[in-house]
Amino acid sequence: MSEPDGGAASPPWTAGAAWIDGRYCPVGDARISVLDLGVTRSDCTYDVVHVWQGRFYRLDAHLDRFAASMARLRLDPGQDRAGIEAVLHGCVRLAGLRDAYVSMTCTRGRMLPGSRDLRTARNSFYCYALPFIWISHPEQQETGARMRISDLIRIPPQSVDPTVKNYHWLDLDLALLDAYDHDADLVVLRDLSGAITEGAGYNVFAHVDGGGLPPGHGTLAGITRRSLIELAREAGQRVDEGCLTADNLLRADEVLVTSTAGGIMPVTVVDGAPVGTGTPGPLTRDLRDRYWASHQDPRYSTPVRYEEPA
Amino acid sequence: MSEPDGGAASPPWTAGAAWIDGRYCPVGDARISVLDLGVTRSDCTYDVVHVWQGRFYRLDAHLDRFAASMARLRLDPGQDRAGIEAVLHGCVRLAGLRDAYVSMTCTRGRMLPGSRDLRTARNSFYCYALPFIWISHPEQQETGARMRISDLIRIPPQSVDPTVKNYHWLDLDLALLDAYDHDADLVVLRDLSGAITEGAGYNVFAHVDGGGLPPGHGTLAGITRRSLIELAREAGQRVDEGCLTADNLLRADEVLVTSTAGGIMPVTVVDGAPVGTGTPGPLTRDLRDRYWASHQDPRYSTPVRYEEPA
Repeated sequence: MSEPDGGAASPPWTAGAAWIDGRYCPVGDARISVLDLGVTRSDCTYDVVHVWQGRFYRLDAHLDRFAASMARLRLDPGQDRAGIEAVLHGCVRLAGLRDAYVSMTCTRGRMLPGSRDLRTARNSFYCYALPFIWISHPEQQETGARMRISDLIRIPPQSVDPTVKNYHWLDLDLALLDAYDHDADLVVLRDLSGAITEGAGYNVFAHVDGGGLPPGHGTLAGITRRSLIELAREAGQRVDEGCLTADNLLRADEVLVTSTAGGIMPVTVVDGAPVGTGTPGPLTRDLRDRYWASHQDPRYSTPVRYEEPA
Repeated sequence: MSEPDGGAASPPWTAGAAWIDGRYCPVGDARISVLDLGVTRSDCTYDVVHVWQGRFYRLDAHLDRFAASMARLRLDPGQDRAGIEAVLHGCVRLAGLRDAYVSMTCTRGRMLPGSRDLRTARNSFYCYALPFIWISHPEQQETGARMRISDLIRIPPQSVDPTVKNYHWLDLDLALLDAYDHDADLVVLRDLSGAITEGAGYNVFAHVDGGGLPPGHGTLAGITRRSLIELAREAGQRVDEGCLTADNLLRADEVLVTSTAGGIMPVTVVDGAPVGTGTPGPLTRDLRDRYWASHQDPRYSTPVRYEEPA
């Protein structure tokens, strides 16, 4: 059955394009078996890269991380790196998007009928490109987002390695539903020791006492997080990779989140109280400008191959 | 695209039948969008009931638990209890199965295009019936399964409520792959305090010093676990619902696992060493006999409505 957004017979599929089961299709038609272990056990890994003004941003870093995640889970996408790269380009091309959110997933696949032996599963790989997604829309970035510090504990590294990008988000989603109840847009979770970890798809930074304090551990090694640290250091801003506490967050001058889905975005309210002056601060604005400017830098970005035949 | 096992034009679909998007189909054709939050965030809950010799076993208990899980996650299946029950019967009927594994899932669904607001998602519900699945096949039950105690920590209740049946299984699957490396068939994980929790779809019991010690906490409220406790008490066997330690497991006279997928199954090797005499013990055998006998008891089982039109 086609989704309303997936019915176009031929590209461009502007609602999004996917590559799955060895072929391209509108993203609304991209479906996986309800028996895939990626569904029934969330036994899979993924990565998301973005395209901005026709260029992939830090594609190599994302492909490196995706390869490391698959190796850690003993998953084989059935494609080499060039093959993965080719279908990522293909999805953006077929969607005809200049600004895109581009996701790649490798799942354990289906076990043989009747078997409960994971080794009988043939892994599956798919990817898709969607119009660019903002965790916090540009208009919202003018005033800044409102964040809640959740009472839920982020799934700890002793259970699921957070450096393997994964879909284990029930803690994040329930925390987010609770944040909505408290008039917040974003949420951040703590670890078992009380330290700040991450939110629903974003890392968190706080500017406290003149330093920058990214969460020290228990988080995904975010590529945008890394970009921010590099850009801040280039700008002469000290970055202390220490342990970010809830107290730091509550008394910070500036708070921001980083994500492939939106870049560097200001947070101006934490737990109902204004951060600093209650407006996006100068450090956040400066880093955000540097971040978007770096998208034209060939050290960081790769042009989409729009002309290549699918 | 149809799966090899899903192509039959008309029932019975003996490889399995599903109900999804408001219609029945062969299970190989049952697919969900790769954009469903049930996939991208494992934001969903499920339950599994079995059919044995044409009768659902403890269907009410499973429906109760499924309803509680959905309420906890604020999910709406778009079906009332009678509607859910009807499609479960329908799947078994269309698969023509006398012994079946019957699964029901409710996912958060898809957010509106471009949105990151969970509240824009319309929840989805599907179910399917497969031929009965054994965690440990009847032949293997003659000698008993081999279990490994994993070094990974089960996702803790502070992060994901284990009483909400969920697909957050990466810890379990990675532990299982490690168990295979150590010549084991099954695995069990500990909690942060070192206590035994559960395995990949089963609860664990150990018979130590004449008592029965189910894991005390951090596990799913298994229906088969509950059945075992009730049957054991009916048989005059003491059951201590305390804290099961790895030490208990290693010096037990008998160890068994319980699951809807296979019932009560003996474990005869733990971490490479024999349990008791190294063969399935008398208590396990007795409880297993009582368990299967209870399937004919109308207090516990409900006949499948095989004759009703789909």
